[in-house]
Amino acid sequence: MLVVQKYGGTSVGTLERIQNVANRVAKARDEGKDLVVVVSAMSGETNKLIEYAHHFSKNPAKKEMDMLLSSGERVTAALLSIALQEMGYDAVAMTGRQAGIVTDTTHTYARIKHIDPKPIKEQIAQGKIVIVAGFQGINEEGNVTTLGRGGSDLTAVALAGALGADQCEIYSDVDGIYTTDPRIEPKAKKLDTISYDEMLELASLGAKVLQNRSVELAKKLGVKLYARSSFSDNEGTLITEESKGMEEVLVSGVALDKNQARVTLRGVADRPGIAAEIFNKLAEENINVDMIIQNVGTDGKTNLGFTVPQSEIDNAKAVVASFGEEIEGADYDENVCKVSIVGVGMKSHSGVAAKAFSTLAENNINIQMISTSEIKVSMIIDEKYGELAVRSLHAAYELDK
Amino acid sequence: MLVVQKYGGTSVGTLERIQNVANRVAKARDEGKDLVVVVSAMSGETNKLIEYAHHFSKNPAKKEMDMLLSSGERVTAALLSIALQEMGYDAVAMTGRQAGIVTDTTHTYARIKHIDPKPIKEQIAQGKIVIVAGFQGINEEGNVTTLGRGGSDLTAVALAGALGADQCEIYSDVDGIYTTDPRIEPKAKKLDTISYDEMLELASLGAKVLQNRSVELAKKLGVKLYARSSFSDNEGTLITEESKGMEEVLVSGVALDKNQARVTLRGVADRPGIAAEIFNKLAEENINVDMIIQNVGTDGKTNLGFTVPQSEIDNAKAVVASFGEEIEGADYDENVCKVSIVGVGMKSHSGVAAKAFSTLAENNINIQMISTSEIKVSMIIDEKYGELAVRSLHAAYELDK
Repeated sequence: MLVVQKYGGTSVGTLERIQNVANRVAKARDEGKDLVVVVSAMSGETNKLIEYAHHFSKNPAKKEMDMLLSSGERVTAALLSIALQEMGYDAVAMTGRQAGIVTDTTHTYARIKHIDPKPIKEQIAQGKIVIVAGFQGINEEGNVTTLGRGGSDLTAVALAGALGADQCEIYSDVDGIYTTDPRIEPKAKKLDTISYDEMLELASLGAKVLQNRSVELAKKLGVKLYARSSFSDNEGTLITEESKGMEEVLVSGVALDKNQARVTLRGVADRPGIAAEIFNKLAEENINVDMIIQNVGTDGKTNLGFTVPQSEIDNAKAVVASFGEEIEGADYDENVCKVSIVGVGMKSHSGVAAKAFSTLAENNINIQMISTSEIKVSMIIDEKYGELAVRSLHAAYELDK
Repeated sequence: MLVVQKYGGTSVGTLERIQNVANRVAKARDEGKDLVVVVSAMSGETNKLIEYAHHFSKNPAKKEMDMLLSSGERVTAALLSIALQEMGYDAVAMTGRQAGIVTDTTHTYARIKHIDPKPIKEQIAQGKIVIVAGFQGINEEGNVTTLGRGGSDLTAVALAGALGADQCEIYSDVDGIYTTDPRIEPKAKKLDTISYDEMLELASLGAKVLQNRSVELAKKLGVKLYARSSFSDNEGTLITEESKGMEEVLVSGVALDKNQARVTLRGVADRPGIAAEIFNKLAEENINVDMIIQNVGTDGKTNLGFTVPQSEIDNAKAVVASFGEEIEGADYDENVCKVSIVGVGMKSHSGVAAKAFSTLAENNINIQMISTSEIKVSMIIDEKYGELAVRSLHAAYELDK
């Protein structure tokens, strides 16, 4: 059985914690597993290096940043390998380059182009535990690249895919995916299993555990992902393909995103292409639009609503202003939040969304915008009702049972 | 004019000092020089990483140590490049691998096998200031290697040789090579010029500034070396080939080595090969023998004297004991030191050594052992007279003038 494990920055944040990871790896080895272990930089290291760079420049060159930032993972990989060797285990540390990870040339946010599985396979064939410095690769010019935030997760998932690993275990300080944020609803329950798609829709619940890029890649490569804590022996949550059993559950989780601002454009000229123009302009300005709602117009005019991160509302206002008289009026609300229910069961059950609407109505919470996908219903509401909405929905779908 | 500069750990020990180095590099650039800048890890970084490794193992694997320790220089190289770019200079940071440095496979003490000058030459041709992470390369298997203590000096000298640089400037917190240790003789004077061979013989004077391996390599490759301070604008000391002018100076410097212990073997069987056996045995035990004196024997017996580092005297005693009756008796003295005078002028002037002996005699300092080379006279004396001997000899050869 070949397992790829990945330990995040908090899990390797001190020398004692690295020893703890070594003990966990050794235990898995004793169970007869072949192991590839991907590590992050010790927590705080990457931020320290970024601060160093910003001492010299507000906008340091990305190529230099990659050489700088890739050093932290190398340190952890070498230390973990040393710890395992001292315990009598045959370990070998490899950089991203040595592990065969080739990326494109987009420095600081590179994409993995391909992985040559041979170097790691050779080491495994020799009975070694392979420790890989996460978050990094080299491009075809031989320059060091890094994969962006959450990059070590990507390294782990990509290696699991390339090596045909049986499973990929992502260790952090959180022991799995919960039905909602336990800080909001103490009755939140850890999920045993969740589908890739649900996980992607529940990004805000899993953000501390798994980045969306990694879940997407795991889905694409069919990698069985476990989200686990390196500080406990709990089973964690398995993120995998949809199964029959999952569909019996109407809703898997409730997510809250408070970083939302609403924009409503009234009386938009109802000519072909106007929406495209507006959203292209927003994209050009690097404004991330989340929900978009458009109703059928009357009198040659239509209303258009969308949400953006709160930090980008001023830029969004500027874009709207640039359309002049093509838009009659606009109003903005920075005091909104998005509450979402997610579940693959929605596909095969009716009335799931209606239950959400009535739950909020019972609590006198007005819904400003609604957006639905196959497995998600998202609602924009007044920010101050966010936590109440989460708790009400959590109870309504009996997620605490 | 192509110049290789190397800045040591103290010179890049803080972010402010890295900025100071950037300013110096920029100044050299403004003077129209093509520049390759080799940097060490920020002072303290390498020791911190070694401590980390020793937390896990007393004897960590050397391959892992190389991955670990090579990270510090990468950080400095990236930061210096960022600082220069911010100042508007076109800089590029390279790892040892990217700079084309290929070593043998001796981890933690690798030797440079060859350097491919192409990658750096291409960058220089594009007008870039090339910043190279010192102390590291890769071997032919693609693994990271490091060059041992003083390795960044070696990187600089080897690059200067491979690139045919006009000169190689080694920056530290010391502004050159002095006629003797200024802590012993405040009248010590900085030398403008010194030959490679004198520098090698004066190792103890230059140890903080230049490691012998680098001086040897500079001599082999004919690289003009400057030892300078990164904290002042002093000219420093040029280490170069012997020249006519140098020979007019009888003595260039006086060195003191207090880490010496004397071993004298009496009545050694005077048969062929006995000395070889003794010194082979010492070598097998990794005991570094420094001076060796043997006198012509009488009665089929001879006396043999040598010195070893004080820390190795117990091991030396054990080796001597293993020769049993082939050695009549031995005495040991750990309270000795070695004082040396060095100068290429000795070759062409007589009476230089005699003056040293009479100077010590005038001060009632007894000479226990003498050893001479073409350009050096070394004397073993009672340790307590070490400083007095240095000051007397410094005055006798008028080094303070």
